[in-house]
Amino acid sequence: MIAYILVISAGIVAILYAFGLVWYILKQPEGIGKIVEIHNYIKEGAKAYLKKQYTVILSIAGVITVFLVPISPLLALSYVLGALSSVAAGYTGMWIAVHANVRTTNAAKEKGVAKALRIAFNGGMVLGLMVVGLGTLLIVLQYLIYGGTAESVKSIIGYSFGASTVALFARVGGGIYTKAADIGADLVGKVEAGIPEDDPRNPGVIADNVGDNVGDVAGMGADLFESYVGSIISTMVIAATALILYSGGGWVNWALVPLGVASAGIFSSIITSLLVRVKEGGDPSKPLTMATIIGGILIAVFTLPLTIYLLGPYGGLRTFTVVVFGIIAGIIVGLTSDYFTNPNKAPVKKVAFKSQSGAALTILTGLAYGFESVLIPAVGIATAELIAYFLLSSYGFWYGIYGVALAAVGMLSLTGIVVSADAYGPITDNAAGIAEQAGLGEEVRAITDKLDAAGNTMKSVCKGFAIGSAALTALAYIAAYSSTILDVTGFTLSKVRELLSLLDAKVISGALIGVALPAVFTTLVILAVSDAAFVLIEEIRRQFREKPGILEFKEKPDYGKAVSIVTSYAIKRLVTPGLLAIIAPIVIGLILGPYGLAGSLVAATVAGLMLGLFQGNVGNTWDNAKKYVEEGHYGGKGSETHKATVIGDTVGDPLKDASGPSINILIKLMSVISLIAAQIIIHYNLVSFLALH
Amino acid sequence: MIAYILVISAGIVAILYAFGLVWYILKQPEGIGKIVEIHNYIKEGAKAYLKKQYTVILSIAGVITVFLVPISPLLALSYVLGALSSVAAGYTGMWIAVHANVRTTNAAKEKGVAKALRIAFNGGMVLGLMVVGLGTLLIVLQYLIYGGTAESVKSIIGYSFGASTVALFARVGGGIYTKAADIGADLVGKVEAGIPEDDPRNPGVIADNVGDNVGDVAGMGADLFESYVGSIISTMVIAATALILYSGGGWVNWALVPLGVASAGIFSSIITSLLVRVKEGGDPSKPLTMATIIGGILIAVFTLPLTIYLLGPYGGLRTFTVVVFGIIAGIIVGLTSDYFTNPNKAPVKKVAFKSQSGAALTILTGLAYGFESVLIPAVGIATAELIAYFLLSSYGFWYGIYGVALAAVGMLSLTGIVVSADAYGPITDNAAGIAEQAGLGEEVRAITDKLDAAGNTMKSVCKGFAIGSAALTALAYIAAYSSTILDVTGFTLSKVRELLSLLDAKVISGALIGVALPAVFTTLVILAVSDAAFVLIEEIRRQFREKPGILEFKEKPDYGKAVSIVTSYAIKRLVTPGLLAIIAPIVIGLILGPYGLAGSLVAATVAGLMLGLFQGNVGNTWDNAKKYVEEGHYGGKGSETHKATVIGDTVGDPLKDASGPSINILIKLMSVISLIAAQIIIHYNLVSFLALH
Repeated sequence: MIAYILVISAGIVAILYAFGLVWYILKQPEGIGKIVEIHNYIKEGAKAYLKKQYTVILSIAGVITVFLVPISPLLALSYVLGALSSVAAGYTGMWIAVHANVRTTNAAKEKGVAKALRIAFNGGMVLGLMVVGLGTLLIVLQYLIYGGTAESVKSIIGYSFGASTVALFARVGGGIYTKAADIGADLVGKVEAGIPEDDPRNPGVIADNVGDNVGDVAGMGADLFESYVGSIISTMVIAATALILYSGGGWVNWALVPLGVASAGIFSSIITSLLVRVKEGGDPSKPLTMATIIGGILIAVFTLPLTIYLLGPYGGLRTFTVVVFGIIAGIIVGLTSDYFTNPNKAPVKKVAFKSQSGAALTILTGLAYGFESVLIPAVGIATAELIAYFLLSSYGFWYGIYGVALAAVGMLSLTGIVVSADAYGPITDNAAGIAEQAGLGEEVRAITDKLDAAGNTMKSVCKGFAIGSAALTALAYIAAYSSTILDVTGFTLSKVRELLSLLDAKVISGALIGVALPAVFTTLVILAVSDAAFVLIEEIRRQFREKPGILEFKEKPDYGKAVSIVTSYAIKRLVTPGLLAIIAPIVIGLILGPYGLAGSLVAATVAGLMLGLFQGNVGNTWDNAKKYVEEGHYGGKGSETHKATVIGDTVGDPLKDASGPSINILIKLMSVISLIAAQIIIHYNLVSFLALH
Repeated sequence: MIAYILVISAGIVAILYAFGLVWYILKQPEGIGKIVEIHNYIKEGAKAYLKKQYTVILSIAGVITVFLVPISPLLALSYVLGALSSVAAGYTGMWIAVHANVRTTNAAKEKGVAKALRIAFNGGMVLGLMVVGLGTLLIVLQYLIYGGTAESVKSIIGYSFGASTVALFARVGGGIYTKAADIGADLVGKVEAGIPEDDPRNPGVIADNVGDNVGDVAGMGADLFESYVGSIISTMVIAATALILYSGGGWVNWALVPLGVASAGIFSSIITSLLVRVKEGGDPSKPLTMATIIGGILIAVFTLPLTIYLLGPYGGLRTFTVVVFGIIAGIIVGLTSDYFTNPNKAPVKKVAFKSQSGAALTILTGLAYGFESVLIPAVGIATAELIAYFLLSSYGFWYGIYGVALAAVGMLSLTGIVVSADAYGPITDNAAGIAEQAGLGEEVRAITDKLDAAGNTMKSVCKGFAIGSAALTALAYIAAYSSTILDVTGFTLSKVRELLSLLDAKVISGALIGVALPAVFTTLVILAVSDAAFVLIEEIRRQFREKPGILEFKEKPDYGKAVSIVTSYAIKRLVTPGLLAIIAPIVIGLILGPYGLAGSLVAATVAGLMLGLFQGNVGNTWDNAKKYVEEGHYGGKGSETHKATVIGDTVGDPLKDASGPSINILIKLMSVISLIAAQIIIHYNLVSFLALH
């Protein structure tokens, strides 16, 4: 009872606190004149994008709901709730972000760095708290309202699937949109027209500003919302399908542990957020990084009494340790990304150094570090996963598997803090853009640039965290998928393990195909970005051609047209990768059967982790190598070395912000669909049909 | 009895035929004057490289032998034989290549394209026949001399390991050498000094010529020799460890099947080689591609009676079908590489088209196609593997696993033809270089360039084939590794399958780490190439500085010094990736145990297939996009578009010729070491120790 009250109140507190922050931000003055005008353009653009995107998402979610109702009405209801929760969190987060950006600029102008940081961070935190608050609250409410039974937990899988559907569109569509706008605006603006970045004469500039919000607020929010609810729900599913076989009614307490850890995460986020402060003239990147580590420690402190309360001292201490290793793995993944992308560390410096010999070596050296950056996170996650298994398998095999899923929950208990720090990035990025476009003075732009730079560091960390946690969430889904096989077939554990063997040709065939899926997904997203960028380039050229006064500040560019063209095209090009993610597991399952599909899921997950980390890190390494040269190293801006790093940055942009993060969605979506379709695939598949006939 | 005679005579025929070709080539006139002088430089450089490399290889092989003797003296003997066979094949192949190149140039000058093609192809064929002839002959002889028992088959694993050790050095060291020489010579020559490619004033030009032989002859030869003997031996090991449990003495015929298929491959290669002819003025790339397909058909025709003779009509027809699917998979992999890298197909054209917008889009579009090129080969191999399993599993589970290994043998029965066609490439490349450096007339260079272009097409095809067959060979090793676990532990099949389950935390941990290994290996090789290129650049600059007469043709550059500097450095930088490949499986095995190690091996294999195909294909796509522009498209040579494609080509060079092919070695070496160390790892590993205490 206490546990339920705690979880429910954590959810409610998070949402109320988010509303409080909204009130705080809206109360800040947005300033006057040009900055408000630009802010309004961004606001309109963002609204237009979201309206279009959410219309498409909700219609497709509607179609999927129709298919789910016959399987289970509660599953369908949960699906709708999952989609709506994700949309609500993303919309609120993005709405407040576009209101916070102008206020950050204004505060930088009127009050200085401390106040500006507070507004920007609070703006980001609205999204962070909405994600964890809505997620935790709705999961526990569904569980209670559906009757608190094992069957009701299985229905909640729909909630994950709903979140996945939205994440697919928000992350992949948003990624294509944001990078197409970025590359398109830059290529015509900087290269062809010779005007600076963020110049108001560029018709694509608002599309670019909007893109930051679309990708890093709505996209990242939906991605981590999916991981967050996915890891909690998979852990509960394992308790309700496999642990129930051993512990009878005792499974309920095991199912409550992930919700308890999530609540600990919520309270820790709020406390930690109060610590994110910077003195006037201080470095704003320090408190952001520190927040993640302090947040992790607080979560651990709050988790221990909770797990002991639910599972007694022995089980409590062990599950607590599993959670701690999940948190540590999350921090390792984040810090590794930081090392490989931080301008003060060797990789970025070496890429900049080698760029003196031309762009080919910029690319090659970057690729080399990108591939290297995979090892430590992989070993970190492998270790956490192994320890989690061994700590709990003393209760029995399935408790070990439950431990693997719980490690994901541990890692994702950082979600509130990470999403807050990440959503801070686009707010300051926009704030700096507004300062530039409004032609504010040097000292204001120095502040907004400093805030923006801190945002970039956190973006790298969050990107690593997002893919690491996506991989662990996918593994949790796969564990839940296996326990569902046990549940549906009624086979013994030995039999299920045997059927899932590496010594099975179907499993290996599945793995061979699975490993190619993140690669092909990458292809589709990269090509979509580069084609969409061309569409925007054409539009910008058309505006320059038809309104020659734009470049002399005599005519206004049509920002709205540029936004709507990229929006439509991005959503159009989302169809193929989206269908691939949805259909691939079903087709593989119907041909290779449930065991071959498991091989595909595992291979896609581990290969996705590798390709995702590679792409996210290499993109940020190139980005920061360019910035490092711009600071005056190796000839500085305008030198040949700088040109080489610009090429690196342009290559890295779609990798780090579009195709790389899209892999997070792919691996989770494939697994959750498999989990939902498990029953059908077990009964109807080609290999068993052939084996029987 | 007939089978043994057939296999032995196939081996002997291949070696004798190779000697005949050597005699034919040496009998051709090498011409007079400048071309002989340049030929002599290449010969000296190649000798110097090989001497240094083989000295290092044989000393390390000596150390490994010392460790193997206490495990089993026969194993150690086989190891030495494997290393020596690979060295012998590689040395002969490279020695004849440097003699064939000058004769090809001379024939192009004196006789025309038909004769020049014949000499170049015969030169390549010496390597192809030495690889298959020595491999087949020595395996059957070891088997007979060791007593023809199941134990004797287990000793022959040493032969694979010996081949692997040499392949590691020849392929990885050769890759680092050849690309460092290529990039280094190009950067200083073309970019800094403004002299054309292959210009005799460039002190790095001979190092570059030598590199073609070192990488594509000695390196590719050792790589495919390893796959060739590895697939045959793993199939035999499965027969001798697992099938013996079911069929008693009947296992011997199953063990002979792979040798029979290999013999069919040898006879087919020789017959096919006679068909590689071109009329005066014809296109030399056609007969090379056709040879692969005709060769495949001939092998199938020869295999059927053999398998029926060994296994009766039912088993014979089924094993025959397995071999056919292996061949088809090999051809699919090769043709897919051709599609993605052929200048007449969409991917290369689109990369060239997008290059008009600058190098960033050259790189991005190339990366996109590189990732896409993975899917079809992966599906092809998965299908072949699945069909192979199902065709033979009607005899029992292990026959299905045997089928998987036999599919690899089927694919590798093409080795003779593929290696011949591939080694043709560097001969014509060198021939074109000699023609250029000797300043021969336009019409001679038109012929050598045409021959060279045909070589490039085959190089792409062979690269795809090499990685595809390496992955299948690694799977065959892993199958043999599993049957060794069965053999050593005495567990039931169900138990072994259960322990190798995807539902085992050790297996998944192993997979997470395994997937990172090809990525890290790529990093080490790329960084080695780019550092080694800098070492050569410094040396070339030094020579230009200290001997200013070189550029005015007044002084001779010191070619030998440039060769020896790159050689030493390449071999030095081979140490870390080499140790990684050797130590990683042992460390993983000693920590995670035999089942966790299996997870690593499978993950490294499937991820290695993906990364290997990606790197091999993207490199050739960029190479050919550059050539496409040089033919006059989008502004032709010297245009901005051309500059963009040159950056793509420079990035792709180390990927396609150094790091990509190195992954072939990594995945096979890891598996064969695991196979040899299986017994130790089963008995001594951390996870079992902890579980017991």
